[in-house]
Parts: sequence; structure tokens; C-alpha cells
Amino acid sequence: MTRSWFNPRTLLDPAVLADIYRHEDPAANAWLFPETVIEHGESLDASVAIPDELVDLYRQLGRPTPLLRATRLEEHLGTRSAIYLKREDVLPNGSFKISSALAQAWFGKREGRTVVVTETAAGQTGVAAALASSLVGLSCEILMVRSSFDRKQLRRLLMASYGADVRPSPSEDTEAGRRFIAAGHQDGSIAIATSEVFELLDGRSGGMNIAGSLLDFTLLYSSVIGLEVTEQLRQLDVVPEVAVGCVGGGSSFGGFALPMLDAHPDLRLVATESTAIPTLTKGRYDFDHPDGEGQAPPLKMFSLGHDFSAPKMHASGLRYHAASPIVSALVHQGRIEAEAHDETEAMEAALLLARLQGLVVSPESSYSLLSAFRRATDPELPPANIVVLVSGSGHLDLDAYASLLTPPAAP
Amino acid sequence: MTRSWFNPRTLLDPAVLADIYRHEDPAANAWLFPETVIEHGESLDASVAIPDELVDLYRQLGRPTPLLRATRLEEHLGTRSAIYLKREDVLPNGSFKISSALAQAWFGKREGRTVVVTETAAGQTGVAAALASSLVGLSCEILMVRSSFDRKQLRRLLMASYGADVRPSPSEDTEAGRRFIAAGHQDGSIAIATSEVFELLDGRSGGMNIAGSLLDFTLLYSSVIGLEVTEQLRQLDVVPEVAVGCVGGGSSFGGFALPMLDAHPDLRLVATESTAIPTLTKGRYDFDHPDGEGQAPPLKMFSLGHDFSAPKMHASGLRYHAASPIVSALVHQGRIEAEAHDETEAMEAALLLARLQGLVVSPESSYSLLSAFRRATDPELPPANIVVLVSGSGHLDLDAYASLLTPPAAP
Repeated sequence: MTRSWFNPRTLLDPAVLADIYRHEDPAANAWLFPETVIEHGESLDASVAIPDELVDLYRQLGRPTPLLRATRLEEHLGTRSAIYLKREDVLPNGSFKISSALAQAWFGKREGRTVVVTETAAGQTGVAAALASSLVGLSCEILMVRSSFDRKQLRRLLMASYGADVRPSPSEDTEAGRRFIAAGHQDGSIAIATSEVFELLDGRSGGMNIAGSLLDFTLLYSSVIGLEVTEQLRQLDVVPEVAVGCVGGGSSFGGFALPMLDAHPDLRLVATESTAIPTLTKGRYDFDHPDGEGQAPPLKMFSLGHDFSAPKMHASGLRYHAASPIVSALVHQGRIEAEAHDETEAMEAALLLARLQGLVVSPESSYSLLSAFRRATDPELPPANIVVLVSGSGHLDLDAYASLLTPPAAP
Repeated sequence: MTRSWFNPRTLLDPAVLADIYRHEDPAANAWLFPETVIEHGESLDASVAIPDELVDLYRQLGRPTPLLRATRLEEHLGTRSAIYLKREDVLPNGSFKISSALAQAWFGKREGRTVVVTETAAGQTGVAAALASSLVGLSCEILMVRSSFDRKQLRRLLMASYGADVRPSPSEDTEAGRRFIAAGHQDGSIAIATSEVFELLDGRSGGMNIAGSLLDFTLLYSSVIGLEVTEQLRQLDVVPEVAVGCVGGGSSFGGFALPMLDAHPDLRLVATESTAIPTLTKGRYDFDHPDGEGQAPPLKMFSLGHDFSAPKMHASGLRYHAASPIVSALVHQGRIEAEAHDETEAMEAALLLARLQGLVVSPESSYSLLSAFRRATDPELPPANIVVLVSGSGHLDLDAYASLLTPPAAP
């Protein structure tokens, strides 16, 4: 088990970093996140030590997660490439998100914060925040976008089982919520939920937010994923040649792929996304607001525009208009390749994996599977060691699988 | 990874075994199950070799599964006992059942069977059968009790994702189904589904059934669980003193607890069940029919009567009137202690575990958790090394957790 996080900020020139964040006031987030978390997000050190108690918590949750060589899949594809799956799906909350949420909650608790108030759309961030809060002893309130609150009942139940108070957004509890309800925005959005959370936290001492993705410290805290892969491959005496992960906000990709560069500087990095939200492949690399309302200071990153209206899709975790500034800069520099894939083709790859290996992966991960399958079966390319991030389990997203089944298995 | 299964039949005197099965015609099941499976179920050898290909399949699914020392739980309980959790919940189908289903399907495929037709109630057996069939290349048809078919949509979707054709029972496809529908038994029952499956298999060449529990070979094939625990504890240099698992049909308990006796003959074995279906604690040890209709030859075992009407409960896997003849005999001999617990208290133990360790276990496992908590906190008893079987994941049973939440988190 790794004893320190890898700092992905060190992959960028300090001048580039300074430019990305030139509109940001470092003090502005201080009330929102624990001081230590803010410091980590601004660090230029190559690595950051993980407190012993947090190492133990990671272990209790099942870290390191398994790295599986999917030999049955390889045989089916008829490839001479090796395909390794990093299985974040086995974490008890069902996704990689706990590793970052837990660190944020743990530092918050140590600094005397008492309550987490956070927003969630489809629920993966909320589930991770709820579990992290429970594990470190913070109370937890979650504003869940109402359309998901109504449709994603199991994620909501999981948050409640972990002890969180889950409410639909827009709510009647905030001015912002009441304003949006009055304007007819009953379904809500992550931007509205965020506004409500800020309002709730603003007047509350001891409160803190847990960030789901995008911010540099979420990549830092997620770097346990890539550090584990590096060590697992070292034990197998395997040199990875391609690493594939999906990008929504960018924390899973950044935490998975970037830490491997230390040991494997020639590693090819492939970031996948949906053709429906082609941030990295068709977005603009420029300054844009990270929030939907355009109130937060702009960051330099790939974006489809902060007013981009994300279509409905199975991979709710990819429904975001922009991507991590660090990941964006590395895509812009050509260090990371970006690929957009069709949702149905991606889910077909996931269904194939389920039938060959039993693994039911999250819809987000399906895009990376498809990319790996194509790379492994491309007759123009030599065999390679390909590592794919399975960022979460699809057991609570089985409706995405059902959409492929003929005749449909569910109404 | 173990290379052979432990044969639990060798724990009984051959004369006792012969008595248990004295009404059975060994040839009677030959059409229903693969020959090798039948042979294994009648074997008196101490162990049975696992074919290499099956060892590899077990590995691909994530065996050995983790053994977790739940130190956070221990601290919360304030106990000096050590509590180890054997985590079958991480298997991709969500429960221990795949290890037995896979062996049955693999031997069937080797013998030229082409299609699995099997019955399922809440769906754990069906999900395992669907995945096993997909992995070895058999087609799979599942008759699912209609009340579960309508309510347990996610398990049904999971079976369909694994490629199975899932139909509600009673169905219009069989005489038995039509008879029960005409008689107004629309909701179905596992007995009705079994009748339909037998009828469908009777006229079909190449067909086979996958048994979910009860039969000796299901305990044999599940013995990988206990063999793994033995090896995992050996590596930790820990001698287990108490092993706790729940009993429905008895295959998880038999596969988990009994193989440990070889290395640890003094191990205390505790079988848990619900006070709502107190087979081992209040049932009768005598001959009874394993099926609900009373047509199959009687076996000597603990039973509440084959016409027992099981109440609705969260732990659907425990809704069975009898228990494995092997487990029953060992309970009768006093080698296994049986305990019945209240459903709500058991689910409260599960909820506590979720909040302390993140693990959301199946409702079946909650009874064993409660037993372990009580043992660990009993001031009259010395500290002990306690191993608890977590037989499956509760992610698809979150309604059981919701029932404890106040105010209720779901309608």
C-alpha cells in the first residue's frame, strides 16, 4: 500500500500552472474546503504523504483494488495484446470516488469541521461523500438533483444507509432553491444544487464541501489508483504501453494514468469521452467558468461552454461541460490523446465484458473498454500491454445495460 | 488458489450418510444434472480435484476473495475479539453462488449439455446460473417466481445482461404453469417454478439444471470459500476459534465452515437463521421432502415441513423449509450450533457495519453479523478469533436497509 500521493501538478511547467489559475483567488475557497486540502491543491511537491490513519482506512475499504488480466476477453478478441483491468468497481461504495472523498473528509475532521454539505447528480459523488463522512465521523447533508433523486433511488438509498440526509434540489431550504422552483426548474441541475450548497454552507460554521472532481486535489487524492497499478505491474514484471480511462471532470483519469508516468515515461495515455459531450475532442482550450452559472473564476481548460446543455446519457459521470485543467493542459500539449466514442457501441463493449468475464462496469468505463478493444484488435498496430480503468460498478446502473437487450428486459 | 474441493460428506459416518439418502434412487437425478456432478455428490473421497480450466475461471472472477479484519468494527464494539469477514460480496454476480454454479455448468458443457434451465426466487441462484452459463458457453433459461420477477427488477436485468432468457413463473409455457395460473396462483413460488423447470427439461435433449443449494455437491463446490479462509488465516498466523455463517439451503455455510475443520478441529461452528423461519432451531430432524409439492424422495434433515409457508422477509435466500442434510446431521450431532435471530436486529447490525466499514452486505449475512457482534461483546466469554461469512452484496437489496431508516428514505 502506497504511503504517499503522486502530485499531478508536477507534470506541468509552473508557468503553465500559474497561467491556468491566473484568475483565481487562492483564499476564495478557504471557507469551502479544509485548509490542508487547499494546501495540497496548491502544492508543487512531487508527492504528499498520506497520514497513517488514512492508509489504514484505505486498506479497510479494500485498497489496493485488484488488477485483473482479462485473458478470456483477450481470447475472444483474438488479440496478442494483454488487457489489464484496474478494478475500482469492488470498492464498497461502488466507485473510485471514495479515495478522494475520504481524504477530504479526514482532513476536515482533523481541522474541526463537523458537517459535510455537498451536491450530487446521479449520486456517485454523494455516495462517496456519505461514506467518507460516516467513516471519519462527520454528519452529511446531500443535495441531489431532483430528476436523479426520483430516478436513481438505489444510490439515494445507499447514501441514506451510510447515514446521510439526502434532499432533492431545488429545495425549499434556500433562496436559490426557492427561486429556481418559482422559475419552473423543478428537475434541477448540478449548477442549481451547487448554488444551494454554497448558500447552506455560507451561513454554517464547521461546514465543508467535498469536491467530486475537476480540482487538482481530487486528482492528487485519486493517485492511489495509478500508484497501485504501477506496483501491481512491477510485481508481474509487465511494462504498460497504453493506459485508457474516461474523463468527466478528470479525477479518475488523472489519478489513474498520470502517476504511472514516473516509472513509465513512454506510456501512451488515452482519455475517452462520449461523442455526445465531446469536451476534449471538440471543446475549446481557453478560459471558462467551472460552474454552470458562470460565477466562479474562469480556469484554463477544455470546455464546451459553461452554458452547455448536457444531453441525457447513461454515463451520468461524464455529463460535465469542461475537464480538469491538468488533464486539459496535457491534452493540449499532446501528451494525452483524446477519443470520443458512441454510447451504444461503448455499452456493447461493456455487455461483451459482462458475458465474458462477469464484470458489470459503470457506463462511464464502457468508453475506455471500447477504446481498448479497438486498440487490441487493430491489425495495423503491434501487440501492447493495455491497462484500462474500470472506474466503478454498474450494478446500480443496470438500466444502461437493459437498453441494449432485445427484446427489452424491463419496461 | 486451491486446486481441489473439500468433500463435506467425509465429516459424516458412511452409515449416517446411507441412512440420510435411503429413500433416494441415485439414478433418478441423472437426467437433471451432469454425470460428473452426480458422481461428485456421491463421492466419499476426502477431496475432489478442480480442473485447471475451472481454477483459471475462479481466478478470473476474483477468487480468492478477500478476508478483511474489520478493525473499525472491533474498535466500535470495544471488543478484544478479532472479527474477520470473508468477502464473497465482491464477486461480480454479487454472491458466493457463482462458485458452485460455475462448476456445474462447466462439467455440463464438458459432457455435451447445451442449455441450462433453472428456477430462481429472488434471483441470486438465477444470476449465478446466468453468468456460469455465459462463461462456459451454454444458453440459459430462467423461470423466476413472478412476484420477484416484478419486484426484483435489477436481479432480472443482471441475468438478462449475462445473456439469460428470464421468464416469470407460473408461465403459459408448461402444463404445470397453466394449471397454477388457472388455479389463481399468479404470484408463483419456488415449488411451482421447479415443477415448470422439470417439465421443460424432461422433453429437452441437452438440457440440465443448476442446483442453487441443499444438495451435497453444492457444498462441495462451495468449499473453495473455506479452503481460502484457512489459507488466508494461515498466512496471518491466526487460529480461528468461531466461524459464523447463515443457513438457507446450507451451501454457503457448508462451503465456508466445514472445510476449516481439517486444519482446526476445535473450531466452534455457528449456523444462523431467522426467527421467522427457524429450521435448525425449531424444525424437526426427520425425513421430509426437499420440494414444496412433496413429490421428491424424502431426505433426513431439519425441516419445518415441506408445506411450510415461508413468510416474506428481506433475506429471500433463507426462505426455505429445510436445510442441507449434511449441515442438518452435524447440527443434530451437536457439532454445529444453531442460532435464530430477529430480522430487524440483524439488519441493524448490517447497517452498523455499513456505516463503520462501508460494506453493504446481503440481508442473509446480517444474521451472522449480529451473532458475531454478540459473541464479541459478551462479557462472560474470553476474546476469540471470529470469522464471519459475508455471503453476498446488498447493493441490489437496498430496500432491506431502507426499512430501517427513519424517516424512510424511499416510498
